[in-house]
Amino acid sequence: MPRYKMIIEYDGAPFSGWQVQANATLTVQGALERAAEAICGEPIRVHGAGRTDAGVHALGQVAHCDVPKVLVPGRFRDGMNAHLRPHPVGVLSADIVPDDFEARFSATRRHYVYRITNRRANLAVDAGRVWRIPRPLDVAAMSEAAKHLLGRHDFTTFRDTECQAKSPIRTLDQLDVVQNGEAITITTSARSFLHSQVRSMVGSLVWVGNGRWTPDDLAAALAAKDRSACGIVAPPDGLYLVKVDY
Amino acid sequence: MPRYKMIIEYDGAPFSGWQVQANATLTVQGALERAAEAICGEPIRVHGAGRTDAGVHALGQVAHCDVPKVLVPGRFRDGMNAHLRPHPVGVLSADIVPDDFEARFSATRRHYVYRITNRRANLAVDAGRVWRIPRPLDVAAMSEAAKHLLGRHDFTTFRDTECQAKSPIRTLDQLDVVQNGEAITITTSARSFLHSQVRSMVGSLVWVGNGRWTPDDLAAALAAKDRSACGIVAPPDGLYLVKVDY
Repeated sequence: MPRYKMIIEYDGAPFSGWQVQANATLTVQGALERAAEAICGEPIRVHGAGRTDAGVHALGQVAHCDVPKVLVPGRFRDGMNAHLRPHPVGVLSADIVPDDFEARFSATRRHYVYRITNRRANLAVDAGRVWRIPRPLDVAAMSEAAKHLLGRHDFTTFRDTECQAKSPIRTLDQLDVVQNGEAITITTSARSFLHSQVRSMVGSLVWVGNGRWTPDDLAAALAAKDRSACGIVAPPDGLYLVKVDY
Repeated sequence: MPRYKMIIEYDGAPFSGWQVQANATLTVQGALERAAEAICGEPIRVHGAGRTDAGVHALGQVAHCDVPKVLVPGRFRDGMNAHLRPHPVGVLSADIVPDDFEARFSATRRHYVYRITNRRANLAVDAGRVWRIPRPLDVAAMSEAAKHLLGRHDFTTFRDTECQAKSPIRTLDQLDVVQNGEAITITTSARSFLHSQVRSMVGSLVWVGNGRWTPDDLAAALAAKDRSACGIVAPPDGLYLVKVDY
């Protein structure tokens, strides 16, 4: 029974997140499983690398599933895309991998991007794709503050209270804040992230950018190891899971 | 009575094009005029640089209007954005210009971009924003063919039969086809374009890219000066009015 690794892009807006839920809401995992079942004629479980929240997008989510058929190359990918329509989910690739490949547990690093549009004008082409912040942000201060979060820390402050991870300790490898005109892009990577960690870090960096906090205040919030010390949680619109390394 | 020049971004998807129509459909011009009326308390006519078709986007449409009030700087722009919500239209800037400025007639050059995504996977984040073409296109052939359209020509072949321009003669200054991974971007500029000219040229270039036409066939189509010699008309999803020069 071949195991497929899929690389998947989706617009998070219409979905109640990645993970199948007890009620009948639309989820990305559920849409993929229904497409796989339509191809295979039996229920198929699809396992993702990361459980993105409602509204969060992916350009390079990874998932695996075991398919009880041997298909010609490209056939599974094309069949998935056909059955996924009209949902905004694209299976970019679907290739056979060794049976011990696990999308979640084999991952060595996850890469996210958070997009902010710093302008007064309404969003148009990027509506639902970025977080619009009308007042100018101090990107230099945000960059300085971001350095405090790099490395191995207890990220309790930046972790959703419903996070199910056993440990709040994570090692943040990258947290860059780059401005290009009205676009501010925050790029981050780590072996794994806690629930809402990226959005919690981004919302807190925005508090530094708008002058509510100094970079040292962000360091103090991290040191507090207390969820109530967190700034705001950034909206899902601007968050993209861009790549998973193995 | 100050005249304002506005630079405007919009997602074309929900609109029946730029121009106000006799029936009650939603148009970009209509949305802008209602917002201006809400600010000024009287009907305001908004004049655009280009009448984009239904579904066509703009990153830098330009329009002017005369406002019977003197407002503090930024107030007209912010008021327009407030009254335009929730429509996907953003007024990027609104500045007072001399009374002889005409968005349409003062323009010296218009710049459009057409975005193609050349891949088999469904669109997700870019759904409605690009034209997806599953089979690989020959971009070198498209580039070669594009050269035949540069310069001053009778563009009858690439002009909608309902085009109201007096002359089919136009001078095309730029028509570049650039590939970056799965993204193919066609950039074009001219003093002015005929109705559906960009989409007609792009659709015909795609016929060259997929091998249905040679570059010489495109040259022959131009020389035919016959609308029935045109390839297909590209869908509006991928077209952006990006800038207007004055």
